[in-house]
Order: sequence, then C-alpha cells, then structure tokens
Amino acid sequence: VKTYLDCYPCFLRQALDAARYSGADDDQQRAVLLLALDALRSLDPASTPPEIGDVIHGIVRRETGATDPYARAKKEATEQALALYHRLKAIVNEAPDPLETAVRLAIAGNIIDLAPSSAYDLWATVERVLDQPFAVDDGPAFREALAAADGILYLADNAGETVFDRVLIETLGHPVTYAVKGGPVLNDATMEDAIAAGLELAAEVVSTGSEAPGTVLRLCSAEFRGRYEKAQMIIAKGQANYETLSGEGDRLFFLLQTKCAVLAQDVGAPQGSIILKQGSGSNGGGR
Amino acid sequence: VKTYLDCYPCFLRQALDAARYSGADDDQQRAVLLLALDALRSLDPASTPPEIGDVIHGIVRRETGATDPYARAKKEATEQALALYHRLKAIVNEAPDPLETAVRLAIAGNIIDLAPSSAYDLWATVERVLDQPFAVDDGPAFREALAAADGILYLADNAGETVFDRVLIETLGHPVTYAVKGGPVLNDATMEDAIAAGLELAAEVVSTGSEAPGTVLRLCSAEFRGRYEKAQMIIAKGQANYETLSGEGDRLFFLLQTKCAVLAQDVGAPQGSIILKQGSGSNGGGR
Repeated sequence: VKTYLDCYPCFLRQALDAARYSGADDDQQRAVLLLALDALRSLDPASTPPEIGDVIHGIVRRETGATDPYARAKKEATEQALALYHRLKAIVNEAPDPLETAVRLAIAGNIIDLAPSSAYDLWATVERVLDQPFAVDDGPAFREALAAADGILYLADNAGETVFDRVLIETLGHPVTYAVKGGPVLNDATMEDAIAAGLELAAEVVSTGSEAPGTVLRLCSAEFRGRYEKAQMIIAKGQANYETLSGEGDRLFFLLQTKCAVLAQDVGAPQGSIILKQGSGSNGGGR
Repeated sequence: VKTYLDCYPCFLRQALDAARYSGADDDQQRAVLLLALDALRSLDPASTPPEIGDVIHGIVRRETGATDPYARAKKEATEQALALYHRLKAIVNEAPDPLETAVRLAIAGNIIDLAPSSAYDLWATVERVLDQPFAVDDGPAFREALAAADGILYLADNAGETVFDRVLIETLGHPVTYAVKGGPVLNDATMEDAIAAGLELAAEVVSTGSEAPGTVLRLCSAEFRGRYEKAQMIIAKGQANYETLSGEGDRLFFLLQTKCAVLAQDVGAPQGSIILKQGSGSNGGGR
C-alpha cells in the first residue's frame, strides 16, 4: 500500500495527537506540527504509510523528549483488555467453532488503535465483530496453512490488542513466536507491553528490532529477518502490517479491521469491515 | 478566533477536497497538496481560519484552473433547499413564535457547509434544530436590537443556506441588505448563488467585494465597508463570519452551528450546538 494524498492530513493530525499524548506544551506542539509539515513536503511519494509514520513519530519523540508518548494509553488499554480475558476465553470455549471465534476476537482487538482516531468502544466492537460477516474471508486457506505448519510467526500490532492475540494463540494449538516492536511508536506493543499482557505465557515473545509501524523488513534486525524467512506461516495483525507486507506471499495471513478510507479502498472492502486475507505475491523466504 | 494547531490538518484535507470538487486529476491534487503544505508552513500564527482558507482555496483555483470548484455542489444545494422552501414557510407560519422558528431554520441551514465535512443530512438537521435548546441564546438582545433597527445588514454564508436565510428575512419585517461573497470560495454564496435562491425577492443583494471566507473587512470593497459601518444591526451567518467578526461589537448577532471542535471550544459550547450570540467588543462604526 502506497501513501495516498489522503494520508497527508491524517499524518499531520497524528503528529498533533502524539505530541499531546506525550504531554507537550503549545510551543512543542507547534514545533512538532511544523517539522511534520516539512517531512510531508519532502516525502517520497512511493513511501508506505508506516514508513511515514516512522518519520512522524520519530519527530514527536525527539521534539517532546518523550521516549514513549503513548506509554500511559498503552498501559490503560492493556489493563482494560486483561480485565476481559476470562470473558474472552469463555466466549471461545463455548463457541461452536472456537478457532473462528478466536480469529474474530483477535480482529475485534484490532480496534485498539490510536492512529486513525482516539475514540473506540471496545466491548461494542467485540459484540459487533463476533456477528459481522467477513468482507474478505480466506478462512479455508488459513485452516489449511495452520494444519500444515509446525509453528507460527505472529506479528503483533497494538498494546491491549495483545490480550486478544493471546486468546487466539492459546486456541491455535501450535508453537507461536510473537513479534513486537523494537521500540515505542504510536500505541504499538513493545516487549514490555506484551509481557504486561501475559503473552510470554502463551508464546515466545521476540522483537522485530524496528520501531517503524508495521513490519518494514529492511529496518528489522538480522535475527528477526532470519525468523521471518524461515517461518512457514505468518499471522500479521492490523493495517500497518498489511500496508507493509500484503504483497510478500501466501504464507502471510492478515487479520484486521479497515479503519480508514485509504486502506478500505486498497483492500476493496467498505470502511469498518473485518478482514482475514491471505497475502499475495511470491514468498520472500520460508517454505 | 485565531488559527489553532488543529486547523492545519483540517485545511490540508480541505485543499484536497476542493481539488477533487474541481475535478482535478491526481497530479493536480498532489500539486495542490504540496502548495498547501508550503502555505501552512509559512503561516502567520495570528491568522484567522478564514484568512488561511482564503489562501488555501486560492491555491486550488489557481492550480486546477477551476474558477469555482464548488459550482455544481452549490447549484445542487440551492435546488435541494428551494424544494423545501414552501415547507419551511409553512413551519414558520404555523409556529407559536414565528421569529424564533425562523431563526432556528436559518441556523439549521448552516449545516450546508462543505468545509468541515462533505456529508450532512439536511432535513434531519432541520428537525433537530427546531427542538434543540440553544447553547448560547442572546435572543432577548436580538429582539431588542431588531425592534430598534430601521434596517439590517445580513452577512450570508453558504449556497443553499441562502434559502433558509430568505425565510428568516421574510419573517424579520425589516428592509434587509444581504451581503454575499465577491467571488467563489468553498461553497460560499456569491451573487449568482443568491439570485438562484430567490434572495433578490426578499432583500437587496450586495457583494462584500471579497472572496475570503467569513468577512475580512480589510479585504472588502470600500462600498461594502461603508454599508457595514452604517449598519444598525448585523446578522452574520456561520462559523467563518463568527471567526472574523466576533469581537467587532454588540450590533452583530451570529447565527451558527458549531461544526468543528476548534470553534466549539472558542464559543464555549459542545460541538453540534446551535448558537444565537451577540458580538462583543466595541462597534467599529454604525449606530
């Protein structure tokens, strides 16, 4: 997914939101905004939205001195989601098709995203996503890949969403490596956030070595790239992973909600859809 | 009202919206966006939102070659509103307090604004605004000023909204001078748009001589400024007139809906409020 013109105003708003999350005063907010304008002005039009996000949120961290502007928001989201953990487990256990239900819950958790908007209703989303038809449903290919795989690489998205991922991982019945960001960006989960959500109880938690949103392979550590290349099946959560990896092969499965108009158009589904989509293109490694 | 940091992303989106309304292709849209970034980068922080809007929409007209990007949207809005004219008149005629009802309808018509968003439901807004309590209600001062005035200067806002203004003007029972933009900007009403809405049947229609959003007096014609200075009572429609004139004296009465968070905060009312507010500060002329 390339960066569309509609992304420009959105990134400018994200810069301002992030500065405010960090507690920046008016002068710092203005400085962030002006630097964000400069960054957008000199943008390579071929950049993906996560690559721009990396630049924008780097500006916010430098200007405000806040290494993790969303730290408190992430902590609160994780606590809110952990409080639902036993309810989520019960929903899966009582479901006629526990795997599909766990997949739906993992997609529901993807609403915990402070990039497109800072307002969402978590439980209302859970109830909606449990019933909503998939706009893209590569479920059969997903089950087939799952049956054939010895282990799974799972690319995390946001803090709090991690708890929903944990429920899915506990349902998969396969060894899972859970990859989180190498450093804070937006409300994406880092190692600390994943541990706070209890992910180490369900999976091996590793870092991608990069703090860019999504998974920009050339920015990841050699160690992570090795794991990525060897993976038989990869579950990738959220818009940014889709934006950075959607063309990287059919061993990838994207679980997400289409939360902005640009991505919805790219996926070819209405905004607000739930998506289980297999990747396209040739596999860069693996198999 | 000064331009707040939140206005920057909004203006960038407006630039893109306006380019698309004009039928610009991708390259033209990109050119508009980059020039809008430059304009925002070099912004005088003391500018009001309408002053920035003037610059942004000037860029769109120059780059796209469209003298009036919103021409079709304005024509459609006027036709849609004209189709409601007899219903609106009947609502006023049957109302226990026709003046208040006509004021409410004039405020309802203020939803026809393509700056904050391009989506609105006109009739649902009429029904809402007829019942909604005023968040700011300077109705008593308004009635007092009306009783004392020989004539009224009425500052128009958007095409289509003009029809709702006409209903109010026909209820005021005073000679009214209806001032429209000197040239196209956004979906603001020009002379042509006002005549298409039948305003010349209810008022003397004049031009401000300026195409800046709102009423930026130093950009208006000397002739209009003369009328403005002599006016005993001024009714000013919409956010942009409020943003440019709210401190210009108590002979001004602002009728508007708070359609964006920045303005809502400035007025001190929630977003989505209806406002009948007397101006503050000393009167620049008049009386």
